[in-house]
Amino acid sequence: MIKYPTTKKTYRKPRINQSNRGMGLEKLIDETNAYYIEHGKALIHKKPTPVQIVNVDYPRREMAKITEAYFRKPSTTDYNGVYKGLYIDFDVKETKHKTSYALKNIHDHQIRHLRGVKAHGGVAFILLKVETLNTVFLLPFERIETYLKRAEKGRKSMTIAEIEKEGYPIQESVSPRLDYLSAVDRYLKDMNKR
Amino acid sequence: MIKYPTTKKTYRKPRINQSNRGMGLEKLIDETNAYYIEHGKALIHKKPTPVQIVNVDYPRREMAKITEAYFRKPSTTDYNGVYKGLYIDFDVKETKHKTSYALKNIHDHQIRHLRGVKAHGGVAFILLKVETLNTVFLLPFERIETYLKRAEKGRKSMTIAEIEKEGYPIQESVSPRLDYLSAVDRYLKDMNKR
Repeated sequence: MIKYPTTKKTYRKPRINQSNRGMGLEKLIDETNAYYIEHGKALIHKKPTPVQIVNVDYPRREMAKITEAYFRKPSTTDYNGVYKGLYIDFDVKETKHKTSYALKNIHDHQIRHLRGVKAHGGVAFILLKVETLNTVFLLPFERIETYLKRAEKGRKSMTIAEIEKEGYPIQESVSPRLDYLSAVDRYLKDMNKR
Repeated sequence: MIKYPTTKKTYRKPRINQSNRGMGLEKLIDETNAYYIEHGKALIHKKPTPVQIVNVDYPRREMAKITEAYFRKPSTTDYNGVYKGLYIDFDVKETKHKTSYALKNIHDHQIRHLRGVKAHGGVAFILLKVETLNTVFLLPFERIETYLKRAEKGRKSMTIAEIEKEGYPIQESVSPRLDYLSAVDRYLKDMNKR
């Protein structure tokens, strides 16, 4: 076996941890958002990771190098934008669990934020990938609210059957990769019927 | 005179450069946004500065220290959110110039983005502080478009008189500090009249 020389290591990835679990799905969504922008369908972006910058060096003029910074706690969700004149706001989750999804995975700041979005007339939801079904569901926030209320006194999770009942399944495809706005359309149609 | 011991320097501010010039105004707007959220009036946030993270150290478990990162070019504006069911999107500018505002200060990616916001039914504008008048104006993006078109063949700036004519002045006050949503209301009222 030929031993190739190791290349100089210039990039070190952060270790995989709980919060990185959604990366595959996030990539699908980023590509979908790029497709939406390119095709003039919507303008939805992932927000940059909030970082507290402590030290910046200027090794050259016009070149700023951040040498000390820390991850900050976000106060909002990861994605927002505009679609058909509507304010769209959501976060992305994944679960490998076979029978249920623990609601503690939707963090307090995300709940507060999505509740506010809903109150101000925006469209608020979670995109949840259920690995065992290999399906991403759009879960409207006000339906999650019902289960958050139940969680105060009882069961702290949604069963997979409840997710299938309350959510809008999204098919993966080639282009766009994950057409979640088609699920938004179905959801809005149902809302208007009520 | 008593000489107090100097405290340990743990935080070093980046040098003041061109892009920091709007900081005073940005602080006013951040405080205003906090007021809006607290009073349930709107949900508008400044987006985090986009940073390309190259290296992260973990001196302790549960403690991530970014040791190498670079500023990335943003592809959107700095502020967005939801107000009365409307998608709101804007950037913040300042000028010390006495007679005009050079349109090259509104960058191409900001123009592209605000144009998209408008096309998708959002509310797109610039908050421009004219230092010599000590006044912040809300400049609706489609009015700026008129002058961008003129700039293709002629004058590359808006005169202060044009800014006063096209813009909605915003009074600074104690609470909220800079009630720009009142200018959004005036603008929307004018739009409905047309």
